[in-house]
Amino acid sequence: MEFDTIAAISTPMGEGAIAIVRLSGDQAFEIADGLFKGVGSKKLSEVASHTIHYGHLIDPKTGQVAEEVMVSVMRGPKTFTKEDVVEINCHGGLVSVNRVLQLVLNQGARLAEPGEFTKRAFLNGRIDLSQAEAVIDLIRAKTDRAMNLALGQMEGRLSKLIQKLRQEILEILAHVEVNIDYPEYDDVEEMTHNMLLEKAKYVKGELEKLLQTSQQGKILREGLSTVIVGRPNVGKSSLLNSLVHENKAIVTDIPGTTRDVIEEYVNVRGVPLRLLDTAGIRETEDIVERIGVERSRQVLKEADLILLVLNYSDELSEEDRNIFKAVEGMDVIVIVNKTDLPQKIDMDEVKKLTKDYSLVTTSLLEDQGVDQLEEAISSLFFSGAIESGDLTYVSNSRHIALLNQAVHSIEEAINGVEMGTPIDIVQIDLTRSWELLGEIIGESVHESLIDQLFSQFCLGK
Amino acid sequence: MEFDTIAAISTPMGEGAIAIVRLSGDQAFEIADGLFKGVGSKKLSEVASHTIHYGHLIDPKTGQVAEEVMVSVMRGPKTFTKEDVVEINCHGGLVSVNRVLQLVLNQGARLAEPGEFTKRAFLNGRIDLSQAEAVIDLIRAKTDRAMNLALGQMEGRLSKLIQKLRQEILEILAHVEVNIDYPEYDDVEEMTHNMLLEKAKYVKGELEKLLQTSQQGKILREGLSTVIVGRPNVGKSSLLNSLVHENKAIVTDIPGTTRDVIEEYVNVRGVPLRLLDTAGIRETEDIVERIGVERSRQVLKEADLILLVLNYSDELSEEDRNIFKAVEGMDVIVIVNKTDLPQKIDMDEVKKLTKDYSLVTTSLLEDQGVDQLEEAISSLFFSGAIESGDLTYVSNSRHIALLNQAVHSIEEAINGVEMGTPIDIVQIDLTRSWELLGEIIGESVHESLIDQLFSQFCLGK
Repeated sequence: MEFDTIAAISTPMGEGAIAIVRLSGDQAFEIADGLFKGVGSKKLSEVASHTIHYGHLIDPKTGQVAEEVMVSVMRGPKTFTKEDVVEINCHGGLVSVNRVLQLVLNQGARLAEPGEFTKRAFLNGRIDLSQAEAVIDLIRAKTDRAMNLALGQMEGRLSKLIQKLRQEILEILAHVEVNIDYPEYDDVEEMTHNMLLEKAKYVKGELEKLLQTSQQGKILREGLSTVIVGRPNVGKSSLLNSLVHENKAIVTDIPGTTRDVIEEYVNVRGVPLRLLDTAGIRETEDIVERIGVERSRQVLKEADLILLVLNYSDELSEEDRNIFKAVEGMDVIVIVNKTDLPQKIDMDEVKKLTKDYSLVTTSLLEDQGVDQLEEAISSLFFSGAIESGDLTYVSNSRHIALLNQAVHSIEEAINGVEMGTPIDIVQIDLTRSWELLGEIIGESVHESLIDQLFSQFCLGK
Repeated sequence: MEFDTIAAISTPMGEGAIAIVRLSGDQAFEIADGLFKGVGSKKLSEVASHTIHYGHLIDPKTGQVAEEVMVSVMRGPKTFTKEDVVEINCHGGLVSVNRVLQLVLNQGARLAEPGEFTKRAFLNGRIDLSQAEAVIDLIRAKTDRAMNLALGQMEGRLSKLIQKLRQEILEILAHVEVNIDYPEYDDVEEMTHNMLLEKAKYVKGELEKLLQTSQQGKILREGLSTVIVGRPNVGKSSLLNSLVHENKAIVTDIPGTTRDVIEEYVNVRGVPLRLLDTAGIRETEDIVERIGVERSRQVLKEADLILLVLNYSDELSEEDRNIFKAVEGMDVIVIVNKTDLPQKIDMDEVKKLTKDYSLVTTSLLEDQGVDQLEEAISSLFFSGAIESGDLTYVSNSRHIALLNQAVHSIEEAINGVEMGTPIDIVQIDLTRSWELLGEIIGESVHESLIDQLFSQFCLGK
């Protein structure tokens, strides 16, 4: 395919030692040559691919030195986009990097849309759609596990599995085709029937196995929405501080949005906890009071994990019991805090209220029980399997939805065969499942979907 | 010189397409080779200098792929530090770039201190101290003019001038030496006396010329601390918004500090205005009321420029007159706003109070008079000379202080000669001025000063 030449700042905005302006497209070398003055006499379009050149950018309008740069020249197709790529490394200041970008835009490059470099890698056939999606997951990863998951997907692990299953469906479809073309042979129909059932059930089983990884996959990718609840003064702030201090807190400032949109992540044994309304806890020590009962129930509903804190040195109150009612049916860990103080709580009643939730006793003041709490969080969501790294995980909501639909279509096909539905109806269901799986890796997807997917990327990728 | 191998993240922290981990030192290639697996079989230590290599980093502990990377290999001395340099370009996420850094640290690299790469460029003799200081100025530059100033200094413009003047002083000293060694020749003394006076006065004149650029240089480099004052409801917020919207507002988050330390810059015709207490204005529309009279006087004192706003449609009040008193002797621009409303203000009294300050009338509501205001700001601090770009500016406080001391020493020498002071006393003053100028470019400076200077850098530079 032929595209125009795009350019963008590819490093995060801010002050740093180095910033990169990246160019991709047929005119990349020409545009760079119009600005670059190196120590040698060679043009960038003449140098060997994958080489680095020191020099200056000269503003053609003034003839003045605009910046001191290192330019990397990479000739397609062995590049990220499969196109000619130039990376201009300049000083990492706001004025400097914007000046370099402006110069290349003045020379005829077009400002890239978010994700457009990766989109070209996809459109030019270097990676498929699920691999492209993994790129953004990798950049946004909050923990090592999340990064490994994205890395595996980027290297094509999921793609290969999906391709294998699509191949299986294709083979079934070929047999069905034979059956439709030669309906006069009864034994062919009999064979097709059995083979079809067997193969379709196998594919369905594989898809379901993949879907089983999705809950863990999604948590690894997006984090566990976690809410800390409890009466005032039970130690909610202490719990929060303890989780943050024992672990690495990751505060993310989503680029391009206001300063208010800050998410706080805590990495607990490789599980990213996304702490909801932590500002509220920090400020007032009481989320329920502060935001009102109605809204706090809303916050609870959005949570994947509830940390319910009780006071060991106080009797259970009606309020405590109400909190238990509010979180019924959710994933809850009950924390009885302040074991350093004399016991007043009725632990038998606590155990009754706790049912089969996990129960941990802590003295956050004396730093006791935090390990057990972290163990409880980790074991609530993960079996041992995750450690091995051998499983292929599905983590992306779009993939999960498509897999569910594909399973549904395969089921329809199986039911059809078993109920003696005409084989050309069964064929439709099988074809549908084949198409649905194709959408995961970006075959047979609409252009609008592609545009939407890549628009989630950061600039310069 | 021989140093250990250092590593740091050289791109700004945050999410972006690409991040760079830079290594410099004798072990740079070896460390990278211990992690890198490319498509070819060649080691990084064997490839040609200034080439780029695609591959993966493998964690030696697990044997697993840790990241997909592009590695730039640059052999010393043709590098930023004059040492062997490896730049690992990885995905621009927090986890990814920290993982890559951790891997190279595990392989034996040491985490670089802020500015340590540039410090090595200095210690290894690639650049002098004033050039090194220009690197950080360039990164921090808030306007094109500030960047050009830094770029000129980085390319050695100031260094060359200082070296030339030191050479002049050295020649004077040589003549003095002859005079001391051969005191019996009267005519030599006579000649020395005249030549010495002439040359010393020339050097003094050149230094003073340079110092004359310092006010403008400092403003270009650091911005004009600007305070907007006026009674409530005169249009301070509108003025702020107008300056911000008409121009490019640059909000900087100083890395490594809390989110509270935010400076807001507005680029007015190449002059960076650093707006003090803008948050206060935005929130309450009244800085004086909000922070109390005492503290607001303190804020005023720190300002380089006062924008004093009056209401055209209201009579002058005692409060207005008090503000005029508070800013007496400072650089003030008086803005009479709301000319879209009926006049009530006594412009004759305004003109009397304004004295020789600039006076501008505006209707910020109707976007009138902003151009004149910007013109007033620009002409208050800059003559036409700045446009040419030919002048060498001094902008760094350290340089300015040294230049002032050097002028003083030269003056002492000149006075000495004129008053017939023994020539060896004059020699001491001349030598002192030669040393002081040497400190600007980093000859004869103390190690502690060097450490302190480079510690102001961002990490990875």
